[in-house]
Amino acid sequence: MKYLITFSYDGSKFFGYQKQLNFASVQEKIENALTKINSNKKVLISASGRTDAGVHAINQKAHFIMENKIEKEKLKNSLNKMVKPHIFIKNIEEVNDLFHARFNVVKKKYTYKINVGEFNPIEYDYIYQLNKKLDICSMLEGIKYFEGEHDFTSFTKKNDEVENFVREIYNTNIEQYDNIIEISFVGNGFLRYMVRNMVGSLIEIGLGKKNPKEIIEIIEKKDRTKSGITAPSNGLYLMDVYYE
Amino acid sequence: MKYLITFSYDGSKFFGYQKQLNFASVQEKIENALTKINSNKKVLISASGRTDAGVHAINQKAHFIMENKIEKEKLKNSLNKMVKPHIFIKNIEEVNDLFHARFNVVKKKYTYKINVGEFNPIEYDYIYQLNKKLDICSMLEGIKYFEGEHDFTSFTKKNDEVENFVREIYNTNIEQYDNIIEISFVGNGFLRYMVRNMVGSLIEIGLGKKNPKEIIEIIEKKDRTKSGITAPSNGLYLMDVYYE
Repeated sequence: MKYLITFSYDGSKFFGYQKQLNFASVQEKIENALTKINSNKKVLISASGRTDAGVHAINQKAHFIMENKIEKEKLKNSLNKMVKPHIFIKNIEEVNDLFHARFNVVKKKYTYKINVGEFNPIEYDYIYQLNKKLDICSMLEGIKYFEGEHDFTSFTKKNDEVENFVREIYNTNIEQYDNIIEISFVGNGFLRYMVRNMVGSLIEIGLGKKNPKEIIEIIEKKDRTKSGITAPSNGLYLMDVYYE
Repeated sequence: MKYLITFSYDGSKFFGYQKQLNFASVQEKIENALTKINSNKKVLISASGRTDAGVHAINQKAHFIMENKIEKEKLKNSLNKMVKPHIFIKNIEEVNDLFHARFNVVKKKYTYKINVGEFNPIEYDYIYQLNKKLDICSMLEGIKYFEGEHDFTSFTKKNDEVENFVREIYNTNIEQYDNIIEISFVGNGFLRYMVRNMVGSLIEIGLGKKNPKEIIEIIEKKDRTKSGITAPSNGLYLMDVYYE
């Protein structure tokens, strides 16, 4: 049987989602728990994508295969006993054999949180402490230029794994609650550091260091050195992953 | 010169406020920074009171003496460079020589946060994950019985340092925002574990395990074994300390 889990985690407590030698990862913690439940026969999970060290997830998704049919609610409780408190399995559902948590993604939503008020040590791992006022109107103009289908070469870190840098952003939004600004992107996929690099450029716009229209030029140049800073990982949340 | 600092900290990153051998404490981190600024002549700080391991502070206060007059804004910035990111000095002011950060306290405010919705791993160190519905109406009745001057023996842990268990609670409040319940107490002083023990009894009332009126009896009995559980430290915040 193939199962899909929806889970949440505190990225500040792990060295990223993906398994790596000698560092605690979200993937390893869940795989170890599933393997134990599966009478120590190794269970591997495939997520919708990785998140970098420090990045949080509200609704990350991953699939795995288990030979024996299991009672979902019971599995969820056993898993949570082993992965809590910094990971929480919210839901388990059966999926058909052809389903793939990464290849079947149609949309993802990311949100980035920034504190524009006074430094707050209690938020430090969860909200980027910019602690400077931002001009939201300029940022709202700038973010619109990211919408649509573009080659996002200027907003990613090149590596050998990816060949196609074209992604489509369906929807963007910026909201402010007291001193917290939340910047959201919904798209068909995001390249490595893409959200943090887009947010970095938007911060420069909000600080008056860049003109909103420069986003158009930067996208066109297809050159990473033209865009802004990379916003730190601790303000980033994978909010949702959508399938057909 | 005597100075009073107002500071905030993430209690999950320290083994309590008070200095202790081999464990990181808030007090030690600030004292070490001040001592460095003071050309390595030891500076000691006296806080309004300690907070236990895991307890957070929004506006904790402490005084210290430095022989040389210092520019406050400059001192604040130098200190913050050394104590951030899990502590933040919000304000420094001069006080007169007779001022004492603990003995001159007239009021303190504590707030306790509880998540009554689904478990949230991202809040784990900051909001108690009860994850069960609470009957706020009963709790609002129960909390009123704490108001006024009482002997709080039933709500503290006896130790040799304290002889008088009478404290006055001026004001209480319970508010709910989405799935988060915030319980606040303003009083002239709080004994060890007193807020967490009062919250523990209120949780039992909210779960229907105790009748609100039992608070009156428990206070009268002056017996710790009569009150409820001790709520965990991670939901507790020292919000404010007031002087004349």
